[in-house]
Amino acid sequence: SQTLKIAAIAGDGIGREVMPEGLRVLEAAAQRFGISLQIDTIDWANCDYYQQTGAMMPEDWKAQLSGYDAIYFGAVGWPATTPDHISLWGSLLKFRREFDQYINLRPVRLFDGVPCPLAGRKAGDIDFLVVRENTEGEYTNLGGILFEGTDREIVIQESVFSRKGTDRVLRFAYELAQQRKRKLTVATKSNGIAISMPWWDQRADAIGADYPDIAVDKQHIDILTAHFVLQPQRFDVVVASNLFGDILSDLGPACTGTIGLAPSANLNPERDFPSLFEPVHGSAPDIYGQGIANPIAMIWSGALMLQFLGHAEAHDAIVRAIEDSLKQGPHTPDLGGQAKTTDVGQDIAERV
Amino acid sequence: SQTLKIAAIAGDGIGREVMPEGLRVLEAAAQRFGISLQIDTIDWANCDYYQQTGAMMPEDWKAQLSGYDAIYFGAVGWPATTPDHISLWGSLLKFRREFDQYINLRPVRLFDGVPCPLAGRKAGDIDFLVVRENTEGEYTNLGGILFEGTDREIVIQESVFSRKGTDRVLRFAYELAQQRKRKLTVATKSNGIAISMPWWDQRADAIGADYPDIAVDKQHIDILTAHFVLQPQRFDVVVASNLFGDILSDLGPACTGTIGLAPSANLNPERDFPSLFEPVHGSAPDIYGQGIANPIAMIWSGALMLQFLGHAEAHDAIVRAIEDSLKQGPHTPDLGGQAKTTDVGQDIAERV
Ligand SMILES: CC(C)[C@H](C(=O)O)[C@@H](O)C(=O)O
Ligand SMILES: CC(C)[C@H](C(=O)O)[C@@H](O)C(=O)O
Repeated sequence: SQTLKIAAIAGDGIGREVMPEGLRVLEAAAQRFGISLQIDTIDWANCDYYQQTGAMMPEDWKAQLSGYDAIYFGAVGWPATTPDHISLWGSLLKFRREFDQYINLRPVRLFDGVPCPLAGRKAGDIDFLVVRENTEGEYTNLGGILFEGTDREIVIQESVFSRKGTDRVLRFAYELAQQRKRKLTVATKSNGIAISMPWWDQRADAIGADYPDIAVDKQHIDILTAHFVLQPQRFDVVVASNLFGDILSDLGPACTGTIGLAPSANLNPERDFPSLFEPVHGSAPDIYGQGIANPIAMIWSGALMLQFLGHAEAHDAIVRAIEDSLKQGPHTPDLGGQAKTTDVGQDIAERV
Repeated sequence: SQTLKIAAIAGDGIGREVMPEGLRVLEAAAQRFGISLQIDTIDWANCDYYQQTGAMMPEDWKAQLSGYDAIYFGAVGWPATTPDHISLWGSLLKFRREFDQYINLRPVRLFDGVPCPLAGRKAGDIDFLVVRENTEGEYTNLGGILFEGTDREIVIQESVFSRKGTDRVLRFAYELAQQRKRKLTVATKSNGIAISMPWWDQRADAIGADYPDIAVDKQHIDILTAHFVLQPQRFDVVVASNLFGDILSDLGPACTGTIGLAPSANLNPERDFPSLFEPVHGSAPDIYGQGIANPIAMIWSGALMLQFLGHAEAHDAIVRAIEDSLKQGPHTPDLGGQAKTTDVGQDIAERV
């Protein structure tokens, strides 16, 4: 089979600590399943690079990355030197947009061996997917400040939703629901956000007309977050705008014990551009340098990458290895253990 | 002492069932503490009225209500006949804006007798306040639809933040933090929402300069929702924009067991206009008509009203009665009991 070309971007903070473990497991899976991998390490798209050059990435970043099948991404952000809105808008958010990774797919699962903050829940009770719109909506730098610096200051922030952008994420979610339990939850806030959200609800209905077998439940984002805590077992596929999906895909993993495990896939389903796979956790400056970051989110993201690139069996093997490792240890401190990042990476690689 | 003039607006659905219990307890407290109350029942601002007249409220609603000290409000919304964005924008959201109720104050507390969805938490562990901006921000009907009805459709939704509106809610939160544990959490999303939220952060810093004794923690809304689940004991005062405050004040109460108990105060602190007190729960069409709605949020909202109007002792007595009633019962079905709405109302009134 064809060689898969992967660009590995560790980024900042614990991104640099979990990346080697992610690669270790990828290579183990490649060996076991006879997948040919070419992994190139990219040392830009981080805040050191920004401090040195004044930009997060070289001008020809797009050309440099376009030939890859996927980007395997650690975490970006180092607020002590570089404001987040600069580091993120100059890297991750650029990838999502310019490589048209319009689906952000984030699994939420409760595992054995992970203490659950919710009372009385056990492995298997929580198992759903958040499908987040990933290129438009509330994340924009459109708008401005009137009477800047005076008492009369007025700030306008614009959200932008396109029919194309909205319909394709809704359709993706309906298709996914069809392969699962035929239940789709649509996040909205049409009772408060009076232009975009009633329209979003209409698009959900319009696309839904093609999927009469799917039971659709629209929930306002406020009560939906409450239901994540009170009835997480009820969800199967949840589709949401960029901001609401961002919130739900941190909250969901928190309900399963930690966002330290949560992976994500930033997909361009048509494969016109490389897709990007990254942990949901950030660069975590507070624990960086101690070698104790949990690498599971990074490793699981690698599994999602192999799955997207056609190797479902490798994905399944990695996820099984994660399950077993969580059950039996070793565990990093976030899960109450004393293991190092590398211990967990090695353990999972061996299991694969 | 002066007579307090209260306008009672039951609204829709279970608003109509919990209102009588709220009034019952208010009257009990008034009697015990020698407070003179005049309560007038308003039968508009509901969806039946809209169906009959084509408007949620009469044209002179503002004149009719201006003389009151406070509005005691049930819940509005009946989606089966009236879209939420019509019923809400035509009543509740109008009150908040036109009566300049710019603070929405929402206590989050875990009580004995209420099963907590979070593992290992007991009464006293969770006790904080969400201070929500209540008149501007993300809740607007500004923007529009370009190429409407075509494949090229583009929707713009504008959020509007003013320095005046932002500074006053931040200042209110800092003042509140000063009376409590001197810890303030500021919700933001400056890494994604690139115009308004970095500016919001700057205003939090600017106002904070007057409160050097307050420890401020800015958290992005995604991870903040995760922390509500993972570390709720860490919060004391949380300040947020209109949308983020809406989300946090449903999620917070969910973490304490149910949003069925959560009260809220929509305050115009200067008392230029009546303030409004209402449960966080909505009209709950699914359980309306059975007489089983939990009236505690309504009753607790009444306590907040008396507190705001200068009767702290009456507030404290009602909250103690709620605590005792939750510990000893009766309980409505949402708390695992079989009591009716009226049973709980009577019990709390007697305890007061
Ligand atoms: C009903 C709705 C418009 C309202 C809001 O979002 O403000 C409600 O959720 C609340 O929190 O008071
Ligand atoms: C870092 C930030 C811009 C990003 C986002 O909000 O999308 C992150 O929270 C995520 O969820 O991937």
